[in-house]
Amino acid sequence: MSVIYQKVALIGLGLIASSMARALREGGLAGSISGHARSAETRETALDIGLVDSVHDTAAAAVDGADLVVLCVPVGVMGAIAEEIAPHLAPGATLTDVGSVKRAVIDAVGPHVPQGVHFIPGHPLAGTEQSGPRAGFATLFTNRWWLFTPLEGTDPEALARLKSLVEAMGANTDEMAPDHHDLVLSVVSHTPHLIAYTMVGVADHLRRVTHEEVIKYSASGFRDFTRIAASDPVMWRDVFLTNKEATLDVLGRFTEELFMLQRAIRMGDGDMLHDYFTRTRAIRRGIIEAGQDTDAPDFGRAPKKDG
Amino acid sequence: MSVIYQKVALIGLGLIASSMARALREGGLAGSISGHARSAETRETALDIGLVDSVHDTAAAAVDGADLVVLCVPVGVMGAIAEEIAPHLAPGATLTDVGSVKRAVIDAVGPHVPQGVHFIPGHPLAGTEQSGPRAGFATLFTNRWWLFTPLEGTDPEALARLKSLVEAMGANTDEMAPDHHDLVLSVVSHTPHLIAYTMVGVADHLRRVTHEEVIKYSASGFRDFTRIAASDPVMWRDVFLTNKEATLDVLGRFTEELFMLQRAIRMGDGDMLHDYFTRTRAIRRGIIEAGQDTDAPDFGRAPKKDG
Repeated sequence: MSVIYQKVALIGLGLIASSMARALREGGLAGSISGHARSAETRETALDIGLVDSVHDTAAAAVDGADLVVLCVPVGVMGAIAEEIAPHLAPGATLTDVGSVKRAVIDAVGPHVPQGVHFIPGHPLAGTEQSGPRAGFATLFTNRWWLFTPLEGTDPEALARLKSLVEAMGANTDEMAPDHHDLVLSVVSHTPHLIAYTMVGVADHLRRVTHEEVIKYSASGFRDFTRIAASDPVMWRDVFLTNKEATLDVLGRFTEELFMLQRAIRMGDGDMLHDYFTRTRAIRRGIIEAGQDTDAPDFGRAPKKDG
Repeated sequence: MSVIYQKVALIGLGLIASSMARALREGGLAGSISGHARSAETRETALDIGLVDSVHDTAAAAVDGADLVVLCVPVGVMGAIAEEIAPHLAPGATLTDVGSVKRAVIDAVGPHVPQGVHFIPGHPLAGTEQSGPRAGFATLFTNRWWLFTPLEGTDPEALARLKSLVEAMGANTDEMAPDHHDLVLSVVSHTPHLIAYTMVGVADHLRRVTHEEVIKYSASGFRDFTRIAASDPVMWRDVFLTNKEATLDVLGRFTEELFMLQRAIRMGDGDMLHDYFTRTRAIRRGIIEAGQDTDAPDFGRAPKKDG
C-alpha cells in the first residue's frame, strides 16, 4: 500500500478515530497522523499507545498542514469545531466527518468551510459498544459500509481520493442523499438503539424483579439489548437531538405496530402473531446472504469465548 | 461421568432436544435416548445424525420404559402431549419440560400426571435463533441457567437427580416460583423478543427505505434485532399467548418509558437523554461481571468470523 494523504488530522480520539489511526498505520496510508481530543488524559493515552505522531491542545493546531481532516467528535459539537479550525485549514485539504447524522452536520459545518477546502460528509457504519482511544482496532471497517453524502459541486477527484482511503482500510463505499441517509439510519440504527435503551431502562425500574435477577438471567434476547444500551451516551444523545424528525417518524410507526401486536396478544390472536414472526425471518436471511452477519448461532455463545 | 438416567425420552426434536441429546451422549449421562417428533422428516434426521437411539411415531411409544421424559415442544401443545403420554409413563419416572413459560405449562400438564410420576417443570435459559434437529450442539447449556419451578410436595431426590443431570450438561441450576419465573422472563426475554420482532416488522413496511437498503446497511444495532426476530415463530407465538399477563404488564411500562424518551427528543431535552443512557450502562457492566456475556466488542465483529 502507499501513502494516500501526507498528513491526516483526527479531531476527537475515540473508538472511530483510534480504529482509523490503527488502520492507517497498518496500511501505511498516511505520511503522519496528528490528533486532538478535549481531554488531556485521552491525548496522553493516544500518544502513549502510538495512535498518532503528535497530539495538540487545540483542534486548530492539529489541522495545521493536514491534507485530510477527519471530525470524529459527537455530532453536537461539530459546528463549533468547524468554526475553530476553519482559518487553519490548508488550501486544497479535504474535510470529512464520521457523524451518524448527516443533514445536521452539513448545516452546522458547511457554513464554516473556506473556499478551496473540500468538505465531504461521511459515515462509517461500524462501531462497537465501547468508547475511547483504547477501544479502536484496525479491522473495525473491514467489509463495513462507509457512506458519503457529497454536496453539490463536490470535486470528483477529492471524493475519489477519500474513497480510496477508506477502501484501503477495508470498507465498502456508497453515496447517498443526506436526508435519505438520515431516514435509513433512523431505521437500521437510531431507533433500535433508543428501543434498546428503553427496554434496559424498564428492567432497571421494575421493582418486583431484582437487579440481581435481571443480570443473572439475561441470557436470551435482553443481553443483546444491554450491549446496545452500553453505547456512548453523548454520541447517542446528539444523534437523537439532531435526527429528530426521522427518529420520531419511525418511532411513531414502531408504536403503532407494537400496539397491534400487543392487541393480538391480549385477544389471543395466535395466527396473526405467527404470520408476523414468520415474515421477519426473511429480512434476517437477506442480511446473512448480503454478508453483513454470520449465521453462526450467537445466543448460545460461550461466555468469554472471544475474551 | 456416569449414567444418571437409564432411558431418556425426548419429546420434540428441535434445538433444545438436539442439544440435550448431544450433551447427554458426550457426557455418557443416559443409558439410551428415545425420541419423538411430529414430522417424519425430523424423526428421520434425528436418527440419521445419531441424536437418538430410536425414534417413534407417537410420543406415547417414545416414553415407554423411560425414567426421564423431557417435553421439548412448544408450550401450546404440552397439555395435549401430557394427556397422550400419561398412561404410558413408568411409575417413578421423572417428567420435565423446557418451556419458556412455567405457569401455563403447570396448568396444562399437571392435571394429567399420574400418581408416582415426578413432574418437575424446568426451563433452560439457552438457545439460538436457529431451529430443528440439526441446530443442536453439546455446549449450548454451558454456564447457562437452568431454572426449575418445583411444585409443592416435589420429591427432593427426584429433583436432586434431575439437577445433577443438567449440571453434568454444564448448566447452573436455580429454583423459582412459577409466577415469578414468568415475570422475570417477560423482562429479560419475552418482551425484548416482541420488540425486536416489531422493529424488524417496521423496517419491512417502511416504503421510503428499500429492503435492499435495510439489508445492506444493517450493521449497527438493527442486526441484533434481526437475529432475535429470526427465532422460531411457533415457539414465540405460544410464549406470548401463555405469558400474556406479564408480557402486557411489561409492555405497558415499556411504552410509557418510550413515550417519555420520545418526548425528550421532541423537546430537545439532551440532559434527560444523557442521564438515561448513562444509567443503562450499569446493567451491562453487571452482566459482564456475572460472566453472562463477554465484553469483547461485538458490533464490529468480522462477518463470518465464526462461520
